[in-house]
Amino acid sequence: VKDLIEKMLRGERRALARLLSYVEERDSRSHKLLEQIWPQTGRAISIGVTGPAGVGKSTLIDQLIRVIRDNQKKVGIIAVDPTSPFTGGAVLGDRVRMQRHSGDPDVFIRSIGSRGKTGGISFSTRALMQLLDAFGTDVILVETVGAGQSEVNIVDLVDTTVVVLMPEAGDSIQALKAGLFEIADVFVVNKKDRDGAERVAQDVETMLSLAPGRSSWKPPIVLTEATNGDGVGVLWKEILRHHEDVVKQGIPKKELLRRRLHELSEIVGNRLSFILMSKIERDSRLMKKLEVVSRPNLYSVCDELLKKYLKSK
Amino acid sequence: VKDLIEKMLRGERRALARLLSYVEERDSRSHKLLEQIWPQTGRAISIGVTGPAGVGKSTLIDQLIRVIRDNQKKVGIIAVDPTSPFTGGAVLGDRVRMQRHSGDPDVFIRSIGSRGKTGGISFSTRALMQLLDAFGTDVILVETVGAGQSEVNIVDLVDTTVVVLMPEAGDSIQALKAGLFEIADVFVVNKKDRDGAERVAQDVETMLSLAPGRSSWKPPIVLTEATNGDGVGVLWKEILRHHEDVVKQGIPKKELLRRRLHELSEIVGNRLSFILMSKIERDSRLMKKLEVVSRPNLYSVCDELLKKYLKSK
Repeated sequence: VKDLIEKMLRGERRALARLLSYVEERDSRSHKLLEQIWPQTGRAISIGVTGPAGVGKSTLIDQLIRVIRDNQKKVGIIAVDPTSPFTGGAVLGDRVRMQRHSGDPDVFIRSIGSRGKTGGISFSTRALMQLLDAFGTDVILVETVGAGQSEVNIVDLVDTTVVVLMPEAGDSIQALKAGLFEIADVFVVNKKDRDGAERVAQDVETMLSLAPGRSSWKPPIVLTEATNGDGVGVLWKEILRHHEDVVKQGIPKKELLRRRLHELSEIVGNRLSFILMSKIERDSRLMKKLEVVSRPNLYSVCDELLKKYLKSK
Repeated sequence: VKDLIEKMLRGERRALARLLSYVEERDSRSHKLLEQIWPQTGRAISIGVTGPAGVGKSTLIDQLIRVIRDNQKKVGIIAVDPTSPFTGGAVLGDRVRMQRHSGDPDVFIRSIGSRGKTGGISFSTRALMQLLDAFGTDVILVETVGAGQSEVNIVDLVDTTVVVLMPEAGDSIQALKAGLFEIADVFVVNKKDRDGAERVAQDVETMLSLAPGRSSWKPPIVLTEATNGDGVGVLWKEILRHHEDVVKQGIPKKELLRRRLHELSEIVGNRLSFILMSKIERDSRLMKKLEVVSRPNLYSVCDELLKKYLKSK
């Protein structure tokens, strides 16, 4: 692993890919690895792109990659959205379109599967972001779906959250009500060529004027047409403007502490769960109990385990 | 709590509501509480209702409640879907419609918020299900959105998974490709009055005929119109038929062990995280470190904590 880390820090993509897999697979080495790269992290700008399925998030990201590459910056993409073409869940046409960046050595795309790994998407996403950060990526884009639908609380992970909507107001307004409105640093109304795009923008404007001001930042509303790239340059400028604002204002101490405790609890929970589950699997008496007893009281089993492995102080 | 549990087991709704809140808030008492009610659980039939946003899951559930109540059974509903009217995320009209069951003492509706509770929706959902089960609910309906979008792996939580689709095939077929197809025990094509409903049913039929047979169960496809209840009686019969099949076939030992280990790891992770985080908050040296140091290496902090609190054996 040490060797791989060195290679990764020298910019070897293959080493990065291997390390990303270790983290994603929750390999036993991943904790040590993340500890070691920590000092190299904290540089990249991170941007969350979220919104209902079908609004064109992936196409927008595709265009953002283009703009970012035109600015000579390295970019990493993490797709948590299972309907994203980046994750392979979409129709073939989309997937082919995404391929055009795949030859670019300064674009790194990774998707996250959500199956069967409890409580871990947020942890995995953060860990992948840290690896990309250490690798020297300037910008990290994270695509998630919906609001609260993926357990990934995107605002805890990124500096700037872009909420993407589209005309066909019902869905978009419903999504805003379900929690997307509060988290937006920048609004996008995509598919601006369609009827009702201006209307959606106005609805958001109205909601903004009624909402209690959270901070000095007023989220801008950008109209785009991701399929041809219209408005995406403006979007990029607004994202950078927000980033500068965050840097200038700084994060309040209390909020910073909250975030750190949250991240720490994820890391601790993950590590402990890994350690204890591997202990359990080597504990033949316990395994027999789980296999045989008709419905063993798992809360009692948990207590037994903690008594055995946790210091009481 | 003991008193509340007794009252709850005697059928007092107010006691149940209080206990549900304890569990949802991750109250310090919730672990003990869940351990105590465990022997009273394992009786209810559990049904997951999932599908893309906007297909009419909530309206369908509303009609299912009616059918289930006509059969004199007690029913509990847990909405994990943030766009569900049950969770309060939807337009007023829907919410009013839902109210019609609110006076019925044998209908219990609960929604789950997803914000800020890492790795916990699955745990919370399961815990609420166990409480409703112990309360004497015959049927538990769990509404989730999408596929893999909510970190709740619905198939791990319920006996029967109903996947709801609608005409406007693009979205539905994309959702199937993104993981909904594999998990369905029963398919529903809702809004059957619309153009293309038969077509969606045929597409699913084709996908089923091409898919490798996982088991002896062939998922039926039911066409419904939730707004007027058409087809919902048939849906209920198919759900019961699947439940009988599960009972008859039994769950393979290996799968049962996998599920138990998974549930145990959730319980353990949750409990440990709770215990350790409260230790951290009382550890002024550590808190100072988290507050002051510019970017403390949280992986190293985690190691420190484990050394302090975990027995090495």
